[in-house]
Amino acid sequence: MTPSAAAAGTRLDPWLGSYADRTHGMRASEIRALFAVANRPEVVSLAGGMPFLEGLPLEELAALASHVVATRGLTSLQYGSGQGDETLREQILDVMALEGIRAHADDVVVTTGSQQGLDLVTRIFVNPGDVVVAEAPSYVGALGVFRAYQADVVHVPIDADGLVPEALDETLTQLAAAGRTVKLLYTVPNFHNPAGVSLSAARRPRVLEIARRHGVLVVEDNPYGLLGFDAPPRDALRALEEDGVVYLGSFSKTFAPGYRVGWVVAPHAVREKLVLASESAILCPSNASQLAISAYLQTFDWRGQVKSYGEQYRERRDAMISALSEYLPSASWNVPEGGFYTWVRLPDGLDSRDMLPRAVTARVAYVPGTAFYYDGAGSDHLRLSFCYPTPERIREGVRRLAGVVSGERELVDLFGTGGVAGGGDVQAPSPDLS
Amino acid sequence: MTPSAAAAGTRLDPWLGSYADRTHGMRASEIRALFAVANRPEVVSLAGGMPFLEGLPLEELAALASHVVATRGLTSLQYGSGQGDETLREQILDVMALEGIRAHADDVVVTTGSQQGLDLVTRIFVNPGDVVVAEAPSYVGALGVFRAYQADVVHVPIDADGLVPEALDETLTQLAAAGRTVKLLYTVPNFHNPAGVSLSAARRPRVLEIARRHGVLVVEDNPYGLLGFDAPPRDALRALEEDGVVYLGSFSKTFAPGYRVGWVVAPHAVREKLVLASESAILCPSNASQLAISAYLQTFDWRGQVKSYGEQYRERRDAMISALSEYLPSASWNVPEGGFYTWVRLPDGLDSRDMLPRAVTARVAYVPGTAFYYDGAGSDHLRLSFCYPTPERIREGVRRLAGVVSGERELVDLFGTGGVAGGGDVQAPSPDLS
Repeated sequence: MTPSAAAAGTRLDPWLGSYADRTHGMRASEIRALFAVANRPEVVSLAGGMPFLEGLPLEELAALASHVVATRGLTSLQYGSGQGDETLREQILDVMALEGIRAHADDVVVTTGSQQGLDLVTRIFVNPGDVVVAEAPSYVGALGVFRAYQADVVHVPIDADGLVPEALDETLTQLAAAGRTVKLLYTVPNFHNPAGVSLSAARRPRVLEIARRHGVLVVEDNPYGLLGFDAPPRDALRALEEDGVVYLGSFSKTFAPGYRVGWVVAPHAVREKLVLASESAILCPSNASQLAISAYLQTFDWRGQVKSYGEQYRERRDAMISALSEYLPSASWNVPEGGFYTWVRLPDGLDSRDMLPRAVTARVAYVPGTAFYYDGAGSDHLRLSFCYPTPERIREGVRRLAGVVSGERELVDLFGTGGVAGGGDVQAPSPDLS
Repeated sequence: MTPSAAAAGTRLDPWLGSYADRTHGMRASEIRALFAVANRPEVVSLAGGMPFLEGLPLEELAALASHVVATRGLTSLQYGSGQGDETLREQILDVMALEGIRAHADDVVVTTGSQQGLDLVTRIFVNPGDVVVAEAPSYVGALGVFRAYQADVVHVPIDADGLVPEALDETLTQLAAAGRTVKLLYTVPNFHNPAGVSLSAARRPRVLEIARRHGVLVVEDNPYGLLGFDAPPRDALRALEEDGVVYLGSFSKTFAPGYRVGWVVAPHAVREKLVLASESAILCPSNASQLAISAYLQTFDWRGQVKSYGEQYRERRDAMISALSEYLPSASWNVPEGGFYTWVRLPDGLDSRDMLPRAVTARVAYVPGTAFYYDGAGSDHLRLSFCYPTPERIREGVRRLAGVVSGERELVDLFGTGGVAGGGDVQAPSPDLS
């Protein structure tokens, strides 16, 4: 949007003076418009976090959907409990047991995707000006939630083993010395979005100890934990400590996002607040969705489906890494052992956000690294997703990207800049970026 | 909960010092525990707002659910747009046309029930301390949302023709003189929850003119508008004015609440903020739910189903009014021309909240009037729902209630009070109270 168009838009909003303070930071990112273009079929999108669902047995799922309505329709179509369906909450315990979590169904709150869980946790804990500590980089949708509640996000570095405990301790010590109130440590310990790394087993108790010592509640966001390519799942942080961890889970990546079913596990008193907050926000989660998921878990080999997803995404990860090695040797990246994403560092002097319009013109899309920082950093990185396109499309996408990078490098060599500068961060999460 | 139990619970919450300011007002109401009892089958619940779904053609809906997954599964199971499915938004225009609303699909945001719409509107407009003006009484779930955003609610009286324009004008004038910032006028103009009345056609333009003159945005919450028993639907406030009204709609009462599909219609700039806020809150509404509703609207005679609901609820309304006349002549009530609720004024000296435990013991439940006021008023009223129980059960429930009232009156005559006093308001909405 040009400044004059923005000004015109401003004049046309009769309620401009009425918005809440929290709304002023809410604006559509400039890359949103680009993503509308990026969704065209001719563009290879390495930007989105959509799972590839074509391996799901749709005919059988259709029969299941019918069965649920025919046999349990009066429940499925009715209002339900604010906390969520009790049978589903029991089944969620089985899912979490794969990561060493022992909990009671009463500790679980079903949410409209784990995004709602994150919104609710932030809602009940964060005052404007409070600090949330998060990895550098962090999931764009989480940053959007923290911004919506007017939090300050302070980033802590990660390396190949995830969050760096010493850096976390130092950051929390400095924040305390500065008199700041730190409410949450937000972390994606497995197959990080966007960085692809996992918190090592050795670091897990250390991170928990540091958070406990500083009185900071850990929010463990774990949508990808079961989607490892080689090793069995690691014990969750929540498996190692109950009172200091709020755990966010989701069926979006291990089954299907279309039902919007996630969950939160929280200490008892926190769980009570979460239910009250959720009832205020949505009254209750969808019974239709919950009963469909519950029937799926009961009827299908869901562990086999998770395994099959892992194999599918490993093949795509391999395709991406091999294409990066072949086409983009001037960049560097990590080799994720699970999940959806690779985090790529561009050759020196290139700016991933400035480059994006030219990438889309070259029919390839990615998410610039700046989306994953609260403070404008990250322009030297970009996130590539290997979850949705086929291996062939991934190769083609990386090949196109390499062409764009090559053109940028020539510009940098000539003019010392990668082209016209952009402006503004990614401001809101979006299904395109999930 | 006894004070000592509350204190014990307090000591057991390690995060008690960490909650946000907004969370301190969030607590479970005392009547919640009673409603757990009230859900037992031997209790006639005249408390809930659950639609009676047994008339729905479950076999055909089951076939439809199967068809959606089999033919559109890759969309239905996937992430969708933050604003909602475009086809469904087009179909929602047809639904709203019945109430005279002309809009564009781009004006519509699909939400997780209209409760989420209310949450989002409040989120983007209300700062702590801002005023929301609302009818006296008002929907308990709306009061819960306003409380969650730390708004002050100022009530405006209603009569048999709904919101009283002169009182609204006077209240807004006084608030302006007091330097208060009034952000929203929240109103349920059709078949009000809990009062059962509707805003007369003559008053509608007057209410809009007053709100416009005072610069207050009208939030028109209209879940029941199509469920009139005799006359055709009135023109919505949104049909009379576009820029000054945010309209909340829902499929929960006209079809089924289990999908959690509602919507908001808002002026363009407001709609943009709502989408950003919704993406932050839930990423996107459920495609599975949206496509199921969309297929229902396309395939079924949904207008016939709405008519059939209206006939069903009229029969129940008649049963309730006739039972009240027969068993509870000492009380007074209105005769609603649509919707789910009758608002009953108790004989002098009786307190509906104090009486509730004894009513539940007598195997009948209702919602005390205090739930519907921000300021503790309403103890002389109670809300009776005629939506869910059969006409026979409604008669039996009112008969039991009459026995309780009669016992209370004897106590009042003897001791000048209706028994042990309760304390605290209803604090949060709950599916039981929807």
